[in-house]
Amino acid sequence: MQLGLVGLGRMGGNMRERLRAAGHEVIGFDRNPQLSDVASLAELAEKLTGPRAVWVMVPAAVTDATIDELAGVLDEGDIIIDGGNSRFSDDGPRAERLAGRGIGYLDVGVSGGIWGRENGYALMVGGAEEHVERLMPVFDALKPAGEFGFVHAGPVGAGHYAKMVHNGIEYGLMHAYAEGYELLAASELVTNVPGVFRSWREGSVVKSWLLDLMDRALEQDPELAQLRGYAEDTGEGRWTVDEAVRLAVPMNVIAAALFARFTSRQTDSPAMKAVAALRQQFGGHAVTPADG
Amino acid sequence: MQLGLVGLGRMGGNMRERLRAAGHEVIGFDRNPQLSDVASLAELAEKLTGPRAVWVMVPAAVTDATIDELAGVLDEGDIIIDGGNSRFSDDGPRAERLAGRGIGYLDVGVSGGIWGRENGYALMVGGAEEHVERLMPVFDALKPAGEFGFVHAGPVGAGHYAKMVHNGIEYGLMHAYAEGYELLAASELVTNVPGVFRSWREGSVVKSWLLDLMDRALEQDPELAQLRGYAEDTGEGRWTVDEAVRLAVPMNVIAAALFARFTSRQTDSPAMKAVAALRQQFGGHAVTPADG
Repeated sequence: MQLGLVGLGRMGGNMRERLRAAGHEVIGFDRNPQLSDVASLAELAEKLTGPRAVWVMVPAAVTDATIDELAGVLDEGDIIIDGGNSRFSDDGPRAERLAGRGIGYLDVGVSGGIWGRENGYALMVGGAEEHVERLMPVFDALKPAGEFGFVHAGPVGAGHYAKMVHNGIEYGLMHAYAEGYELLAASELVTNVPGVFRSWREGSVVKSWLLDLMDRALEQDPELAQLRGYAEDTGEGRWTVDEAVRLAVPMNVIAAALFARFTSRQTDSPAMKAVAALRQQFGGHAVTPADG
Repeated sequence: MQLGLVGLGRMGGNMRERLRAAGHEVIGFDRNPQLSDVASLAELAEKLTGPRAVWVMVPAAVTDATIDELAGVLDEGDIIIDGGNSRFSDDGPRAERLAGRGIGYLDVGVSGGIWGRENGYALMVGGAEEHVERLMPVFDALKPAGEFGFVHAGPVGAGHYAKMVHNGIEYGLMHAYAEGYELLAASELVTNVPGVFRSWREGSVVKSWLLDLMDRALEQDPELAQLRGYAEDTGEGRWTVDEAVRLAVPMNVIAAALFARFTSRQTDSPAMKAVAALRQQFGGHAVTPADG
């Protein structure tokens, strides 16, 4: 089928390739004219035959602005799909605004990163059944071959919600491997830490795609000597913990993984200054002065 | 090659089958005569040609007693392999006792559970290179096909240490999926929770063998209605956290997963009674009385 695709960065660009390889006609727009097939959203709308379907794949911060601008050049009966990392709570209001113009809306959580072009993207979709059905040829082309990698998770918002939880789980999984790595590296007994991780890739209970990537990282740098122990977060871990707080769901593991990232970004810790100050007040405990 | 195998329960029994299927001669002993090939450890020793190799696959609580009894019927130059879930700190003293009689010792962490017979067992081995080399035909038959599933992790103790950390990581991984499950089930948006887990099996960042098992569990019981939220632990999670404490390694995620299991086994919480008592002391906060 024919699809408009807005945002041709690392994710959008690879998706365009995967869709074209599957025989779909993709007309892409990007602010960068080197990447773009058309000069403007208006030209994109002109080149698409109605009823149109336009997939938006832009950073979360500019998604609302992009969708509002796009809605201005679309018509009743068209559908906008947001495949970016929007917060699920933005989806409902967005779908309502678009419904006011007769434009349908689907939210799609997309996983797979840079490996997706070759292996396919896991898709978590929220929205009305009729809209999902219209986009199924596109979903079928983007998802991995086989029976997995696609779910219609629920109404508008459910796709991004499922993707948010996916990313929250990812934080916990990564940190479980990470803590195991640190303990193995600290142990006096285990002399072949990369070999231990590699061995787990088959036959073990902890085998996973993330473990495969860990093995790859340790192959390139067996002591991770080239890296500083510092990790950013892109929002979805925070949203997951926010939701756990809202719904009073215990989430100690994922919250601990998120908080460990915050700790990793501190050059010094106000909390640990406070602990040091209190130990000093007890009397007798040595403290470490701040660097001159 | 020829191998003695002591302990023919779920793990040992399956390993005997896998080894025999690979052409090895396995003589098994179990206290249960229905399972055993010989009537006693003495008969086992008699039937094996020296230098012997005897693999012990019994519960951790009886491993030392079994090995001591076995050592009494073996000779200098023989090797004992402990494939059970011993604590790594038992391996060194055990190897020393055996070395006093000229008997070699290897500790092997074995992962794979009931799936191992078909898929192979991940093996983490600790001990001297010469002993590892002698047992390689057995390890090759037990491990999964391909380049993964085996590591010589270090000297005596390193195999069980690596297996301990493997199991600690497993606690963290399981709990990350579990917290995601609880949040999805609590959400007002996601209507197809089993479908979301299933979709992640391909193309997602969280795909893993444990995720496959989670999908299987949800297929059999989509709301896990047949289960109570209760989980035992078999010791290795505790040992992992003990080691993190000894070596001052931060381990918030794995510790949280372990502690969540303890919480799951309480019918009431003394700590939360204390919190309720203090809230009552503030004045004004309602408390929930204990059941008559």
